[in-house]
Amino acid sequence: MNINQDLFATFAFHAGLMAVKTLGMAFATVKQRISNNNVMTKEDASMRPGAKVGVGVNEDVERVRRAHQNDIENIFPFLTLGFLYLFTNPALSTATTVFRIFSGARIMHTIVYLWEIPQPSRALAFFAGMGANLYMGYKVLSTFASAM
Amino acid sequence: MNINQDLFATFAFHAGLMAVKTLGMAFATVKQRISNNNVMTKEDASMRPGAKVGVGVNEDVERVRRAHQNDIENIFPFLTLGFLYLFTNPALSTATTVFRIFSGARIMHTIVYLWEIPQPSRALAFFAGMGANLYMGYKVLSTFASAM
Amino acid sequence: MNINQDLFATFAFHAGLMAVKTLGMAFATVKQRISNNNVMTKEDASMRPGAKVGVGVNEDVERVRRAHQNDIENIFPFLTLGFLYLFTNPALSTATTVFRIFSGARIMHTIVYLWEIPQPSRALAFFAGMGANLYMGYKVLSTFASAM
Repeated sequence: MNINQDLFATFAFHAGLMAVKTLGMAFATVKQRISNNNVMTKEDASMRPGAKVGVGVNEDVERVRRAHQNDIENIFPFLTLGFLYLFTNPALSTATTVFRIFSGARIMHTIVYLWEIPQPSRALAFFAGMGANLYMGYKVLSTFASAM
Repeated sequence: MNINQDLFATFAFHAGLMAVKTLGMAFATVKQRISNNNVMTKEDASMRPGAKVGVGVNEDVERVRRAHQNDIENIFPFLTLGFLYLFTNPALSTATTVFRIFSGARIMHTIVYLWEIPQPSRALAFFAGMGANLYMGYKVLSTFASAM
Repeated sequence: MNINQDLFATFAFHAGLMAVKTLGMAFATVKQRISNNNVMTKEDASMRPGAKVGVGVNEDVERVRRAHQNDIENIFPFLTLGFLYLFTNPALSTATTVFRIFSGARIMHTIVYLWEIPQPSRALAFFAGMGANLYMGYKVLSTFASAM
């Protein structure tokens, strides 16, 4: 049950980076809420008189929220799949490559989403991250299939 | 701090399965978006002229998105609770049963949700998964309560 | 790769607590759905004739759902960041303090959100939890930066 220290360190860096990146989306949302004067609840409106209240009233705010949700849907499974993948005995160089592809793809996904870079940019970034996740998922399920 | 290898393998299989199952909901959403010609953003609309743009405009798309969100709310806590539960010294047979109930319940939940099988089917699947999660949560909190 | 048993126990308690707390939001949502006679899907309506169907039709239901989503955005990254932080060689007293601040802040955040306590209460609770997360993220990234 022991895993190589370098392998764990690579995972720890990329998992930490992706968790912090996801947290950062909250600040991007706040920035758009202030720029567009759109708050979420009536008690927030007391701090910003005249603000529009609610969800779905400003497209720039909703865009950041959708990018945040897409991180939740893809990065949170990565945090577990990447950890379990360490126990499938991957080569360090392979694991490092998979983690870098995932991190790079998810950072690109957010850039492309928020700057509204034309499709298929976002689809490509999404599928690069999804591919890395599914590859790790396949390795985990095939390694541990006998423990079903 | 060492855990039994068979115990870990059982967790690894079910956690990997549930993470991949959650990722799969993205493909179910894309399928419904294409069938119903409903895209999420205006840059996506450039790839599908005539598509309806936005959230909440098509009930079949929203249904998959709700099932996806329900996975996020239940499966992601499982990925951590299941791991911590391994350190509460469970019998292998008990842990295997709890993990199988959870995986089975969540797969049933999605089938029942997407095929619109009448209630209380969905409620039963939801509470079976929730029960497994709360059982593991109870074991973790009672085992580690002195470290509060 | 071994971590101190007391350190792990502290993490296990707080991670278990936060996972269970997030699961609990589902029950708070159900309570509001029943009080306000607002169900999510048409098959649910068959169990509650006369109920309003859909998302966004009742502010009390939406309030709980937003608090739940905020937990997802903040507590799920914590479950991984807290675990990785254990490998950055923190003092037990420091780690215990950081975990207690996080747990306390997130419980306060929900209380303040659901009871509609005036701002800046919710902002303060949010930033206390975010600060704990970012502190752990910084420790993880600086410890493992060479494994980038």
